[in-house]
Amino acid sequence: MILIGERINGMFQDVKSAIASRDKTVIQNLAIKQTEAGADYLDVNVGTSADPEGVMQWLVETVEESCKTPLSIDSQKPAVVEAALKVLDSSKGVLLNSSPLNRKTDEEILSRYIAMAKSRNGKLIALAMDKGGVPQSTSGRVEIAAAIVEKALAEGFSTENLFIDPIILPVNVPGAQAQPGFILEALMQIRLLSDPAPHTTVGLSNVSQGTSERSLINRTFLVMAIAAGLDSAILDVFDKELVDAVATAEMLLNKQIYSDSFLKAFRSMRR
Amino acid sequence: MILIGERINGMFQDVKSAIASRDKTVIQNLAIKQTEAGADYLDVNVGTSADPEGVMQWLVETVEESCKTPLSIDSQKPAVVEAALKVLDSSKGVLLNSSPLNRKTDEEILSRYIAMAKSRNGKLIALAMDKGGVPQSTSGRVEIAAAIVEKALAEGFSTENLFIDPIILPVNVPGAQAQPGFILEALMQIRLLSDPAPHTTVGLSNVSQGTSERSLINRTFLVMAIAAGLDSAILDVFDKELVDAVATAEMLLNKQIYSDSFLKAFRSMRR
Repeated sequence: MILIGERINGMFQDVKSAIASRDKTVIQNLAIKQTEAGADYLDVNVGTSADPEGVMQWLVETVEESCKTPLSIDSQKPAVVEAALKVLDSSKGVLLNSSPLNRKTDEEILSRYIAMAKSRNGKLIALAMDKGGVPQSTSGRVEIAAAIVEKALAEGFSTENLFIDPIILPVNVPGAQAQPGFILEALMQIRLLSDPAPHTTVGLSNVSQGTSERSLINRTFLVMAIAAGLDSAILDVFDKELVDAVATAEMLLNKQIYSDSFLKAFRSMRR
Repeated sequence: MILIGERINGMFQDVKSAIASRDKTVIQNLAIKQTEAGADYLDVNVGTSADPEGVMQWLVETVEESCKTPLSIDSQKPAVVEAALKVLDSSKGVLLNSSPLNRKTDEEILSRYIAMAKSRNGKLIALAMDKGGVPQSTSGRVEIAAAIVEKALAEGFSTENLFIDPIILPVNVPGAQAQPGFILEALMQIRLLSDPAPHTTVGLSNVSQGTSERSLINRTFLVMAIAAGLDSAILDVFDKELVDAVATAEMLLNKQIYSDSFLKAFRSMRR
């Protein structure tokens, strides 16, 4: 399971304040602590900003001063991603997060993201959404995923570097409660779209947005999704019970050898 | 999700002692408390006994003095099940637990269990094992499940009353760590064997036997199995985190409406 730590995001108040005052300590602490907690990638998102390119570059440089964990450059704006790539340490991997299939008036945004990922031999998260927005059905998501895989292959981008995000919505939104089941079904189908299969990923915390049992809902959905083939997620690696659940699911799927200390082993293997 | 409470079993020391001294209070407390915790059925198993028929009848009568929750009559011996059926309250449902497809020298034991279940309009758990024992592969389990479904249909026993148990083994047994993954795959395939689909069930606690993280492993496997279509389990309903995980998985699969008090609602609906 590829764990992408979600915490360096300007939507969180501590990060927002640190950006405003250019306080490196807060950002670097989050980078180091998420790495220690098992993050394979550190997501970096500026939140809302009048100067997203400048803030993204400051965040990337600040994180890279503190640890070598690869980054997930999180922006829907190609210019912000490009700004990040200009300053990023070129000796390590990178994940670009994320591109829809296309946008209004068929803007070929996926091609731009694929080109940026290829230029750095990096990985890319593509969202199962298009100019019509997020489809509400399993089949709508899988059709977009198929179009994404087709475009990636046509542009010489290996599906081994492609992560498809079927987009999970908050379960408490009226009318949206069927969505988690559709996502599980979509995850199973997306894995069959190519050989090698594309990776799949979810922005996990979204499923529990606004609910009263966030950690329980997050880890329960994540374990269900892992059973459906999910192999990556953007999540809160500081949630100990969540990481324990991932470790246990991996062990039960025979991806990590059982020992009485498998929870410790899961973490120590990742550092 | 159909929850079968596992605690009235002579393999537990408190039950064993209560049986030895014919102490009704211990048994009746377990019956009432498991019902309050959300059990749909109370499993009743004599454990080891020189007089299994007599002990089974005493257990059945003792439980039925205290509550109306249907029983799961748990014995591999048809004579013990028959003894239970003689004294069982005939006004409520019953689950017979369990029969293999057949035994050495092709003994037609499944037919005997089907006949007993039919005589009481009851339900039946059939184990995905035959005279060769428990198959170690997904396909071996599914083949036996298919033969069970075929026999049930041939004998006029509805698959709506049939529960197939693919038999989960302890994950810490050397060489057995691939088994949970095979079980998940088998659960998905067994649901496709007939329309209406047979139910599926597992003796959950077995997966964590002898491990250091029993509750975590139990609930993680159960959530994965629910994602794979499992709709019943024999388990420890006193494990609050386990029942919370079931409630959350059911809510995420849109089987219970989300509200901020969905955990409470799950329990109060079941009493």
